[in-house]
Amino acid sequence: MMINKQVLLKSRPKGWASEADFEILEAPVPKPAEGQVLVRNHWLSLDPYMRGRMNDAKSYAAKAEIGEVMIGGTVGEVVETHDASFKKGDFVVGMLGWQQFGVASGKALRVIDVKAAPAQAYLGAIGMPGVTAWIGLLTIAEPKPGETVVVSAASGAVGSVVGQLAKIKGARAVGIAGGAQKCRYVVEELGFDAGVDYKSPSFIADLEAATPKGVDVYFENVGGEVLEAVSRRFNFFARMPLCGLVSQYNEANPAGLRNLHAFLTNRVKLQGFIVSDRPELWPRALQELASWVGSGKIKYRETIAQGLENAPKAFIGMLKGENFGKQLVKLV
Amino acid sequence: MMINKQVLLKSRPKGWASEADFEILEAPVPKPAEGQVLVRNHWLSLDPYMRGRMNDAKSYAAKAEIGEVMIGGTVGEVVETHDASFKKGDFVVGMLGWQQFGVASGKALRVIDVKAAPAQAYLGAIGMPGVTAWIGLLTIAEPKPGETVVVSAASGAVGSVVGQLAKIKGARAVGIAGGAQKCRYVVEELGFDAGVDYKSPSFIADLEAATPKGVDVYFENVGGEVLEAVSRRFNFFARMPLCGLVSQYNEANPAGLRNLHAFLTNRVKLQGFIVSDRPELWPRALQELASWVGSGKIKYRETIAQGLENAPKAFIGMLKGENFGKQLVKLV
Repeated sequence: MMINKQVLLKSRPKGWASEADFEILEAPVPKPAEGQVLVRNHWLSLDPYMRGRMNDAKSYAAKAEIGEVMIGGTVGEVVETHDASFKKGDFVVGMLGWQQFGVASGKALRVIDVKAAPAQAYLGAIGMPGVTAWIGLLTIAEPKPGETVVVSAASGAVGSVVGQLAKIKGARAVGIAGGAQKCRYVVEELGFDAGVDYKSPSFIADLEAATPKGVDVYFENVGGEVLEAVSRRFNFFARMPLCGLVSQYNEANPAGLRNLHAFLTNRVKLQGFIVSDRPELWPRALQELASWVGSGKIKYRETIAQGLENAPKAFIGMLKGENFGKQLVKLV
Repeated sequence: MMINKQVLLKSRPKGWASEADFEILEAPVPKPAEGQVLVRNHWLSLDPYMRGRMNDAKSYAAKAEIGEVMIGGTVGEVVETHDASFKKGDFVVGMLGWQQFGVASGKALRVIDVKAAPAQAYLGAIGMPGVTAWIGLLTIAEPKPGETVVVSAASGAVGSVVGQLAKIKGARAVGIAGGAQKCRYVVEELGFDAGVDYKSPSFIADLEAATPKGVDVYFENVGGEVLEAVSRRFNFFARMPLCGLVSQYNEANPAGLRNLHAFLTNRVKLQGFIVSDRPELWPRALQELASWVGSGKIKYRETIAQGLENAPKAFIGMLKGENFGKQLVKLV
């Protein structure tokens, strides 16, 4: 009998998640029912939103349950199908979770073209993170040519696409990231106009120098002190798509936003959003992203953990910013 | 020679404004130049935004200068005109400041119909505060029938119109105000569905009881603890027009917003706004407001201070919530 290694949620973390909050288990490979497809996962995506699902709190999506497989986006290969729209050997993207095999309704899977791009890119720049960047920047912030777009977690899966989309739209792109290496990367490899290191003692002055005309768009992934600093640079009518607050997810007392007054006097729009709220936009977003990735206008980098058993450690490292670009787990 | 009593800004307050920050002075009545109109002010409007203008900080409008007449909206009577579109005896609304007489370009004045409504109403429900409510609620929040609209400073010049507009649009209107008397007023006289007293020890529980289906729109005038409490009641896709933060204007360390996470998980839109940014909407807003005031669908209340010399005291009292409804100063 084939074995299906899985990572379950064992306990809900208080503060920082730890490896002890996960449990690794071996289960039988599940059997697909009528209309279902059995997939062997090749890649697991690790994303900051997963930390929120580990809490016992109202959120935009069902929380992960204790003793259940952790939720997560996957790319894999169809090994058995009871849905005629798939065939064995098809590569599909879905939400099959932290496990080696999964079954899902055919409706919850999408066939991908692994000749056009590497399979794992469908979990990154031409997947959920890319669409998140596309929706947040292009439908909420709508940057105009010459405006200044700042994005935090700029070398990450979402942030790196945000800055490159800003450049495509003719805006100035400023990325905030942790450490000189990531800041150099967003400028030298991704083509941002500036990279600002939030860990540097000169962060405030560096941010000011990088935004000489103020900030028109702030694509927010992190919260905390970075948000405070950027909010002091807002121009009138600035827009702030609120995508994540990763610096706060493990804090018992989140920092919030001290400088609310800046939102009033500058007439700023803040809009929380979740990529799954706008399914009607996905086809167009994916098509544009794939074309820009194909033409080299959107580049990306990956950090790859080997083997499912390393997923918890890689996930915790990602929350601390130890990854560089899209964090993946290679399962095969 | 006729005397023009004026109130000047004497010093920029640190924390709470005090009467010592103002100076009362007598000057000659100014002479209108070509294209200008001399107006004898009958009514001066006192509004929370004026506190911001007293600071030496970037804001949406020019700050008040030390030694200059305090800015403010006025209604008065034309006494001399060098602009042919006005005649002596016309009543006009303008921004002539805290003084008995003022000159302005005819372009900065608008003739009002004092037979259709009392002159001072053009500083309230059918003036800037009414248009503020109209723009914030109807163009930013866009409440749908059956949704729950919460407004703070609910018995004030803006808040009272917000709640009544919400009712006109078929929404549930919940007003937050200070003290049982104001809470009774918004329900019994203005027709809100509930009034919640933020000074009551049971405020949190009362707010919960008044919003059994959560909060879809929060029209924010005050900030601080009231904002924290309402943010815990947000429904998915709630909207928060940010009109003012009056509880914070005199604080050296404003409270900000601790519960930023609620804006992410509930996909809330927060939009700072200033009524003067949308001049193109004023004619329609004023027309609708005048019609609803005329038909009794929008009611209002006024607190009237007598004489310009009492303006500083009335202004400070308003910032503390001592007024009831629109705060005015009667000058004639």
